[in-house]
Parts: sequence; structure tokens; C-alpha cells
Amino acid sequence: MNYIPSLKYENGQLTIIDQTRLPVDSVWLPIHDLNTACEAIVALRVRGAPAIGVMAALSAIVVFRNSVKAGEAASVERFLEICNTLRKTRPTAVNLFYAIDRMSAKAAGLAGLSADVILQQLEAEAVAIYREDVELCDAIGRHGASLIKEGATVLTHCNTGSLATAGRGTALGAIYTAFFEEAKKIKVINTETRPLLQGARLTSYELVTAGIPTTLITDSMAAMVMKQRRVDLVMVGADRIARNGDSANKIGTLALSILAKHYGIPFYVLAPSTTIDTTIADGSAIVIEERTADEVRSFGERRTAPANVNVFNPAFDVAPAELISGIVTEKGVFHGPYDFR
Amino acid sequence: MNYIPSLKYENGQLTIIDQTRLPVDSVWLPIHDLNTACEAIVALRVRGAPAIGVMAALSAIVVFRNSVKAGEAASVERFLEICNTLRKTRPTAVNLFYAIDRMSAKAAGLAGLSADVILQQLEAEAVAIYREDVELCDAIGRHGASLIKEGATVLTHCNTGSLATAGRGTALGAIYTAFFEEAKKIKVINTETRPLLQGARLTSYELVTAGIPTTLITDSMAAMVMKQRRVDLVMVGADRIARNGDSANKIGTLALSILAKHYGIPFYVLAPSTTIDTTIADGSAIVIEERTADEVRSFGERRTAPANVNVFNPAFDVAPAELISGIVTEKGVFHGPYDFR
Repeated sequence: MNYIPSLKYENGQLTIIDQTRLPVDSVWLPIHDLNTACEAIVALRVRGAPAIGVMAALSAIVVFRNSVKAGEAASVERFLEICNTLRKTRPTAVNLFYAIDRMSAKAAGLAGLSADVILQQLEAEAVAIYREDVELCDAIGRHGASLIKEGATVLTHCNTGSLATAGRGTALGAIYTAFFEEAKKIKVINTETRPLLQGARLTSYELVTAGIPTTLITDSMAAMVMKQRRVDLVMVGADRIARNGDSANKIGTLALSILAKHYGIPFYVLAPSTTIDTTIADGSAIVIEERTADEVRSFGERRTAPANVNVFNPAFDVAPAELISGIVTEKGVFHGPYDFR
Repeated sequence: MNYIPSLKYENGQLTIIDQTRLPVDSVWLPIHDLNTACEAIVALRVRGAPAIGVMAALSAIVVFRNSVKAGEAASVERFLEICNTLRKTRPTAVNLFYAIDRMSAKAAGLAGLSADVILQQLEAEAVAIYREDVELCDAIGRHGASLIKEGATVLTHCNTGSLATAGRGTALGAIYTAFFEEAKKIKVINTETRPLLQGARLTSYELVTAGIPTTLITDSMAAMVMKQRRVDLVMVGADRIARNGDSANKIGTLALSILAKHYGIPFYVLAPSTTIDTTIADGSAIVIEERTADEVRSFGERRTAPANVNVFNPAFDVAPAELISGIVTEKGVFHGPYDFR
């Protein structure tokens, strides 16, 4: 299968597909400097917890190398500054912190070495994070696909495919694996995922491009398709998973977990094990990013609500562990009660 | 209180506010002929089950009178033809059928009378339907307000206010009554209500105009605000209620009823008793209108999903009676098990 990549790293050049322009325009954005890298993450030009992590690692080395080329010293301190700036772009996805921590730890061990060695070692680490994400997706896809029966319809939310990772994706990766590698005749129902429509814009685009049958619904229609027994299982991604299995994911995931429980439909969370934050006992400790009111009050250039109406716009919510039938990582399928350490 | 009317009938002239243009533009649309009347209903320029019924009754007499003025005979058959065309505009809301049936029955009793008498009697019937809806709203508002405690936060869906009726509204009417006539310090959380954003565009507009504190959320955020205990009760309208209490309402209502049950939050349906369809035993007999795919694939002029992606776009779903804490009509508050006859 040929999936649409979220980013490319070739000959030391990093480019990302601007996901805010999809599915209408495919615009590749080069990342040369720190401002462009941070803006791309904040503005969701690149999004999806695993993709953000890979993008941050690759951005760090690219920005650092460009600053060295421009005459700055190849100092570990400078690299850590870059890392710290990238770390502050978004608060919820733990993959960003994982990638930045790993790059920072690598850098800390390189103090005093030559500029060439520092650059080469840091690039190798960023590329390793990139490659590992591809492999993590492959393994998650295999384990996840084992849960999808021949002829099943999978309901998914937001975008968890190749645009959300550096590989084939997590929840959508399992769907790709079941469809292409296991030749299962499966179908998908995908929510549009308000307010930013990652489902309508990105998941529909990936699935239509791949030729996998899908039906787009608004978030509010999930209950009805479940009631009509059109859905055999739900598969979603995660941005952070607590030790007890509570899983933060795109806003609307909590509702889907409750609806699936109500209708007796299995509900699975798929994510690399790097998404598990072993430092927090449960979901109550997960910081939920609140985004600007205009994402809800407007659509594109068009205002759709009174300009002065109060808005609550959390980007994520937390599905409680007891509503999650299984958590799929690259290591396998885990069932509750969860105890990740 | 001065609420924004959905329609005006003055000196024999019918005008409606074009709700597809709100909240940005307030455009009043005169209704002279049958095509304009039907298009206004189909295109949701007027919407809300009670408002559609009143609009259809007033349209029937206006269109009929204009055809008589233009030289056609004031025949009962011609009037019934107009009624039959109006009846076919939308399939789910029973109020439309109620109003049209009532006008048709009135007309049937007028055969052989003079044109002046026929016109005068039919206008009187349409105006009676209009005035009764205002009174129904007042009574629903009183009964509904009794369920809203001082300081409560009410979550509501779609638009059930003055724009959805000829009066102050149903669910929103109860909120108006509690706030203005009972001086309760209450708050509202209102969903945007995809795909057509009646919540964002119309309910936010009504509440901001009225000065009632409200917070706009996407449909997918309802679970989170319930989990955070920010919601004390849910109040929604209905487009058709079966004998057993199953209630069809705007898509997304089913999900809210399940989420409210999960969190132990009371869930009320408010509608005039004319919304109760005593000919059907339960919700499975309610015809659910499916609307065009482009409502989900596009927003305004902007395409937001692949043009060829399959879409499921039901306009309504059915909240099952067992998840409804109470049904409020002009006759009072009813609790399950419901048995409307």
C-alpha cells in the first residue's frame, strides 16, 4: 500500500504536508527555522500525537544544523534551547515530550564533542525516532487488525492514519493492515470530528485515496449508527494514556466510549507504548489543551455564531479505562484492569 | 421579554426571517406563492417543528388568497391541493401534518360557501393555529421552568426557541420563563448542532440577544461538560413523539439521552401535545428524513471532505422513552412509563 505521508525527510531536508489545506490542496511546507516548525505544530499543519513527536525531533536537528551553517556554535546548550521551545507548542500529547526528552538526553551526552559528531549523532537519533514510529505503526497495525473480523465495520474518530504518524497510523493503521495485508472486506464509518474536521478532511481523504469503503458522519450521528447495529467495533487513537488505562484523545472520544458501552460494542484504543505516561496514575492528571473560541464560532472565513458568544473548546477528553475494551500498542492487545509501568 | 419572531403575519401578509442567513444577516422573506413557501420549508429558512406547522397553515391561506385574487376560483379543491403540496415538504415533524390536516378539515366543511366566507374562515383557522402555538409555548414554558432550579445550568441542543415556534419556544421557552419570569439565575450550555449549526447560529443568537449566559460547545463536547458536573439537566425539543414516549428530535439527541443517563443527569423533552403522534406505538415507526450529503461534505461554499466520499446524513434520531426523565407538554410534566392516547 502507498499511504500519504505526513512528512518527508530526504537529504537532510524536512517538509510536511500542510494538513490545514487538505483535502482541497496538497501543499508541502519546508521546515528550515524554529518559528516555522513551532507554528506548524501550533496551527495543526502537522498533527497527530506520533507525527508531532517525529516532526519535533526532525525539526530540532534541521533547525540546529541550519543555525550552525549560519555561523552559530554547535553547542549542546543551543540545541537544548531549540528543544525547549518545541516542547512548549502543545500540552497534551506525550509523544512530543518523549521525542524531545530523547533528543535532549542524547544531546546532553555529546557535550565537548566536535560539531560534526554532534550533528551526526543528533540526526541519527531523530532518524531513529522516525524509523521506530514506522515500525511501531506496523506492529500496532498487526495487533489491531487481529481484532477486526472479516466483513466488520469499524467506527473511527479524528485522524489516526498516515497523516497522524510517520508510518501507516494507529487505529487507521490497523484498518489498512486488515484491508490490504489480510484482504478482509471491511468498511469504515468515520466521524467528521468537530471543530477542526480532521475526520472529514483527513480520514475521509486517506480512506477514499486508499479505496477503503467509508461513510462520513457528523459526530452527533455515532449513536444512531450504533443503534442501527451498523458498527461492529470502535477504534480510536490516543494522545496520552495514564497508568490505569484512562486515555486522552480527540474531543468526542469520551462520548464514543460511553455510547459503545451502552450498545455493547467493543471500544479499542490504539497507540504506541510511548503514548503511555507512566508518571500519572489516572486521567485526572492529564492537562487538556483548550483552544481558541473562534474554532467553534467560525468556519474558515465564515462566522457561524454570534461573535461575542462564550465558547468552551477543549481539544481532548479522556475515555475512562473501564469503558475501554482493549488498548493496543506495538507490544500487543492489553485488557483491563490496566496497570502500565 | 422581547424574543426574535420566526414569522410575522400582519394585514394578511406573511413574512419569515430567513434562518439560513442568521446570525450574520437578518433578512425577512415575504411568502406570496406556493413555490416560495415550500422552498422556505425544504431549505430550512423556517424550521423547528412548531414553526413549520404554523408557517404551513399561514402559507396555505396566503397562497390561496393570492390565487383567488389572481382570478382562480376559491374552491375547496384548490385549497386542498395547496395543502397537499405543503404536506410533502418534510417527512418527520408531525406538527406540519397536524396543521395541514386541521386546515384541510376546516376547508372540507366549507364547500359550497361563498369565496369571502371560505377565505375568512380559513384565515381564522390559520390564525387560531398561530395563536394557539404562542399559548402552547407559554404553558410549556411554565411547566418546563418548574424543573429548572435556581442556579442550574441547562444543556440544550439544536434550536427550540422563538425561532423554532410561533411563540417563545419549547425547551428554550422554559429557559426564558425561568430566567425572565421567575428571575432564576440560570445558565445554558448549547451545542452547535451539526451539520446545519442551528445551535451555534440560532440558539446562541437568541440567548446572546436575550442576555442569558450561555456557552457554545460542539456536539462532541457534551460528554465532557457532563463529566465535569457542569450540567444539571438537559432540555430538548421534539419533532414527533410516539405513544410510548420515544421522541424523534434533531440528530444528536439520542447521544445526549445516553450520555445524560450515564452521568445521572435528568433528560427532558419539551413539545406541544400536537407533537405526540398517537397513531404510532413507538419510535420505530417514525420516518427519519435523510438530507443531502453536501450538508456534511461542505460548509457554506467551502468543501471540507473529498467530493466523492459516501455520507450518511439523517436529520433526526429517536431518544428512547426509557432514557427520558420527563416529557413536558402544555398539559404538564409526564413521567414514564408513558402512554399517550
